[in-house]
Amino acid sequence: MENVTTILTGGTLVTMDDSYTLIHDGAVAIRDEHIVAVGSSAEISARYRAPQVISCAGQIIMPGLVNAHTHVPMTLLRGIADDLRLDVWLMGYIMPTEREFVSPTFCRLGTSLACAEMIRGGVTTFAEMYYFEADIAAATAAAGLRAVLGQTVLKFPAPDAETYDDSLRYAREFIELWRGHPLITPAIAPHAPYSNTEETLRLCTELALEYDVPLIIHLAETKLEVEDHIKAYGQSVIRWAAAIGLFRARVLAAHCVAIDADEIRLLRKHKVAVAHNPSANLKLASGIAPVNTLLKEGVTVSIGTDGPASNNDLDMFEEMRLAALLAKIPAEDPTALPAKRALTLATRMGAQALGLGAITGSLEPGKRADIIVIDAHPTHNVPHFTVSPDAVYSRIVYAGKSTDVAHVLCNGQWLMRDRQLLTLDETALKAEAADYAARISAFLSAREEDLVSKLLAIGGELERSESFEVQVKAVLHNVSMIEELLDHPEMKVIKSIHYRQYDTYFLFDDPKKGRLRYREDDNIDENGVVRSVRSRLTFTSGDKEREYNNTILLSHSRYISDANRPLRFYREYFQPSEERELHKDRRRWHVEYKGVPFFVNVDRVSHPKLPDTYIELKSRTWSSKDAEHKAALIQEMLDILQVPATDILKDEYVEMQES
Amino acid sequence: MENVTTILTGGTLVTMDDSYTLIHDGAVAIRDEHIVAVGSSAEISARYRAPQVISCAGQIIMPGLVNAHTHVPMTLLRGIADDLRLDVWLMGYIMPTEREFVSPTFCRLGTSLACAEMIRGGVTTFAEMYYFEADIAAATAAAGLRAVLGQTVLKFPAPDAETYDDSLRYAREFIELWRGHPLITPAIAPHAPYSNTEETLRLCTELALEYDVPLIIHLAETKLEVEDHIKAYGQSVIRWAAAIGLFRARVLAAHCVAIDADEIRLLRKHKVAVAHNPSANLKLASGIAPVNTLLKEGVTVSIGTDGPASNNDLDMFEEMRLAALLAKIPAEDPTALPAKRALTLATRMGAQALGLGAITGSLEPGKRADIIVIDAHPTHNVPHFTVSPDAVYSRIVYAGKSTDVAHVLCNGQWLMRDRQLLTLDETALKAEAADYAARISAFLSAREEDLVSKLLAIGGELERSESFEVQVKAVLHNVSMIEELLDHPEMKVIKSIHYRQYDTYFLFDDPKKGRLRYREDDNIDENGVVRSVRSRLTFTSGDKEREYNNTILLSHSRYISDANRPLRFYREYFQPSEERELHKDRRRWHVEYKGVPFFVNVDRVSHPKLPDTYIELKSRTWSSKDAEHKAALIQEMLDILQVPATDILKDEYVEMQES
Repeated sequence: MENVTTILTGGTLVTMDDSYTLIHDGAVAIRDEHIVAVGSSAEISARYRAPQVISCAGQIIMPGLVNAHTHVPMTLLRGIADDLRLDVWLMGYIMPTEREFVSPTFCRLGTSLACAEMIRGGVTTFAEMYYFEADIAAATAAAGLRAVLGQTVLKFPAPDAETYDDSLRYAREFIELWRGHPLITPAIAPHAPYSNTEETLRLCTELALEYDVPLIIHLAETKLEVEDHIKAYGQSVIRWAAAIGLFRARVLAAHCVAIDADEIRLLRKHKVAVAHNPSANLKLASGIAPVNTLLKEGVTVSIGTDGPASNNDLDMFEEMRLAALLAKIPAEDPTALPAKRALTLATRMGAQALGLGAITGSLEPGKRADIIVIDAHPTHNVPHFTVSPDAVYSRIVYAGKSTDVAHVLCNGQWLMRDRQLLTLDETALKAEAADYAARISAFLSAREEDLVSKLLAIGGELERSESFEVQVKAVLHNVSMIEELLDHPEMKVIKSIHYRQYDTYFLFDDPKKGRLRYREDDNIDENGVVRSVRSRLTFTSGDKEREYNNTILLSHSRYISDANRPLRFYREYFQPSEERELHKDRRRWHVEYKGVPFFVNVDRVSHPKLPDTYIELKSRTWSSKDAEHKAALIQEMLDILQVPATDILKDEYVEMQES
Repeated sequence: MENVTTILTGGTLVTMDDSYTLIHDGAVAIRDEHIVAVGSSAEISARYRAPQVISCAGQIIMPGLVNAHTHVPMTLLRGIADDLRLDVWLMGYIMPTEREFVSPTFCRLGTSLACAEMIRGGVTTFAEMYYFEADIAAATAAAGLRAVLGQTVLKFPAPDAETYDDSLRYAREFIELWRGHPLITPAIAPHAPYSNTEETLRLCTELALEYDVPLIIHLAETKLEVEDHIKAYGQSVIRWAAAIGLFRARVLAAHCVAIDADEIRLLRKHKVAVAHNPSANLKLASGIAPVNTLLKEGVTVSIGTDGPASNNDLDMFEEMRLAALLAKIPAEDPTALPAKRALTLATRMGAQALGLGAITGSLEPGKRADIIVIDAHPTHNVPHFTVSPDAVYSRIVYAGKSTDVAHVLCNGQWLMRDRQLLTLDETALKAEAADYAARISAFLSAREEDLVSKLLAIGGELERSESFEVQVKAVLHNVSMIEELLDHPEMKVIKSIHYRQYDTYFLFDDPKKGRLRYREDDNIDENGVVRSVRSRLTFTSGDKEREYNNTILLSHSRYISDANRPLRFYREYFQPSEERELHKDRRRWHVEYKGVPFFVNVDRVSHPKLPDTYIELKSRTWSSKDAEHKAALIQEMLDILQVPATDILKDEYVEMQES
């Protein structure tokens, strides 16, 4: 009789080894961190004795699951904003919050909470990338989970580094500090090609090669990413990554949704492992990764939950099931990625993808004791049939739940016993997380109440214009009078421009919030051809107007920002209660009347169709006194144009459509 | 103070009413089966008193979920066969098992087990169709769930009816018996257009109209179904169903995956409600139903789990999440079907689809008390943010689990309290289900061991051929000798045929099992044009051969069946360990030599390429004595052909490729 530490016995043993050994009344003998033997309960009890013998009757003993791609501290951002496009979600919510809140404390707490959830759900190994990776490592090691942790490198400032040099320095120190740890594999994680430069990717690759650590990266997550990359570099993402030598490192590439057959062969050639994230790819409408083709071509494929801010949980049972179900759609074949295969991706092949295939991912003598025990007979997973030898995989994948997990061991250490966590204090973690969430909610709510803060939060470069706009608008019945004005001896024309303007107004329930105008200016040449396009976003407060003579004197805060994102982004981000469209043809002259600068606009409004030609005379100023002077000059110009007071209009065009 | 029966108080009240009223510290007052009031906890406690006041602190109080399409007794067939094509799954496993096992007892047990699972998962209302619907109704009413139960009608024999007349008579009796029941709505369920005739569908429609009960049907589940329907009827499924008047009834149509924009408008016009089954549609590779477009066009859409033999569970949390996630793919838009909308489909709109919108689906005074209480703060669903008003829907749909459900009331009755089922004995149900599963496994295993039983199980019309095949095969070096044989005075040619034959042999690890040959015979006319095609499946046992002279005398059981399913079906159904292909050109003469019938085949084998032309002389007989006589005649014919003994081949073609 040999002495061991622990024996798990009397369960259905699903080893997930290369020959898929299944033992119906099976047992595992564990000594310290290693699996010493697997076999029938009778064999194991005949050869081994242990102070701790756990009966797993009515349960399945199987390898812990491998979550191959996530961002664990983002557990603290779970459900912060959902059902949004990637850019709105990332630049509108995640990045502003991260800039404000992500710290070593944040990362430790988020990691601990994520570990609690993953242990409950039967995950014993994960790969992740985020910031302050040394703190993530400390929290992971304390929780007792195995992980590959990638320090993020970005070309722009990150929460843990002002420059990418700082990130790389941090990464080097992190790797030096944690390499050789029994649970933690440090790694380098250039976030993605679009958030890096060729140089930063090269530096990351060198670092990965120098220390022989994995390189984690997001690749080809969306069609748009690939199209943009082709525009910028003349090559698709995968081809370019191969060309610049990124794949010299041991690469774990997340997503790989938008890839073609040649790129799949490139991935195989360079032994790039893929982390498939089915929920996240659906949730952001990125598409369905060609998992079946990747596997057929011999690429190592693993499954990940992605971060809990975009999933919204860390449930590998859901992800395996979804991986198996989704693969059948592009293949148009229900036999594609059967349950047994999906479970392989979430265990043995997942471990291989992370470079940990030699020590985890299956129950085999010599491997680490990364083991979970799950209830085989919950109401949602009975009865059992014995016809198909693969029925047990089908039960785990198609009807198993993360809450079926009863026990978890990692590296021979008990992390959960009878659904009680042994290394983490869930109650305390939840309370701390609630505090963070309250502060983040307050931060975001304050921003929500104020359009200018919300504009600033997405990095809008705001230009505050002069406080006062002095302006008159009138019907111009006799269009030829404009020549009279421009030819007037006191008038000097500086510049003339022809625009087509497409305005979208965002209105809000609370008029005190002000309004936003998204304007696309198409600059038209003499042949009517668009010469250039510019988009700007203008915020105007709802402050009261003051009238001077018949000229409207607007006193308002006015902020202008280049609109470098599509209209759709702003619509989803600001969520106006109402939108109005306004299209017009505008001829504009920059003039000086009696030496004072004015704009003269002659407008025809095509949508909504307004009947007349309109003239606007306007100027801006910081001074109330100066405003009065300019208003008087505007009145003189109206006289030259022979516009009677009755033709003067007080409404903005966008109001005129109301009537 | 008004007296009520029960007050649920202190929870987050998610009413799912038309204005999506949310009350953060909310309560519900229940009197008998009705909701009397919803409001803040303070309001309710000020106005009502009850003997039973349940604190729901840290929980969400919401309407019970509506599972809009399932087949509840099929819980007893969960996981019986997975990752197969629809035809293999249905005709290879489900239907043979159903023919053997489905009975009133089976249906009651399966229903009770399904109800246990659904109550645990927060379902209070479901729609289903199966057999012995009166027994399903009895079991459902005993469990205390609300249901629309559709008695299945098929054009061919069903487990509960030899003919469709019987089904319709049964349905009428079932409707008479159960209509007006507080929980059960009887319905008629013609299974699908392809399993019915225009007449049976008309009779079902008339019955539905006569009793004003819903009509449940599977429509346009797959592209193939629609293509076949167009071939048979010249119209797509939905157009045809509209044309024959099916939609005069209140129709709940399951699936509607393969439909176009015009058909969506037809569904809306006829107020057909759709039951979307995301998991089942993925698992069978049917595709993704255009849910977002259906909703935009104003069609009432609900969500179902489908039967647990094809899902493999009854988890509406998974289905809602999947509905929300999947809808984003065809729309290429992550804002498609947001969480709030998905939850609406699984509650209020689901109830509307079942014709129960007036009494369930939301928490409103006057509606029935169909209420679930779920834990709001499990580790997998914290922390909470307050920024978005829709965050609570997002938490329920994207990170909620069926196991978060703590309490369930239906029609005012407690069905589960603190995760304890109150109307069902789960332990007993599981034990009975295990007994059934063991018997079903034994039935299927017996079939698995015997290819002939397995052939019979899929309804193969087997023809047993004569016991003995007397045959010789030889290399025919001089092809012109065939003329000598056919022109011989003792020879009479009855018929000559030219085939191209494509054989696929299925071999099995255990040679005693025998082998199967799938043969496609292309009958070729004198111009080389294919005149007709016939496919046959031939089983030969692995019994030993007996040799007579140089002529091989085969003693074997031989069964032939028309192969009316594609090769792919048989491959997936029989799962051979090896397959071999054989293609040949065969000229065959039916002859009489000395008055005894023989076949003369002249073969050229093109795949695998064999070098020679071969001749086969063969006959069949039931008699061992007669076999010897025929063997002697074959020897005479060999002499006419001047084939020396050294040119005689003992191997079958399919063996020859081995060398």
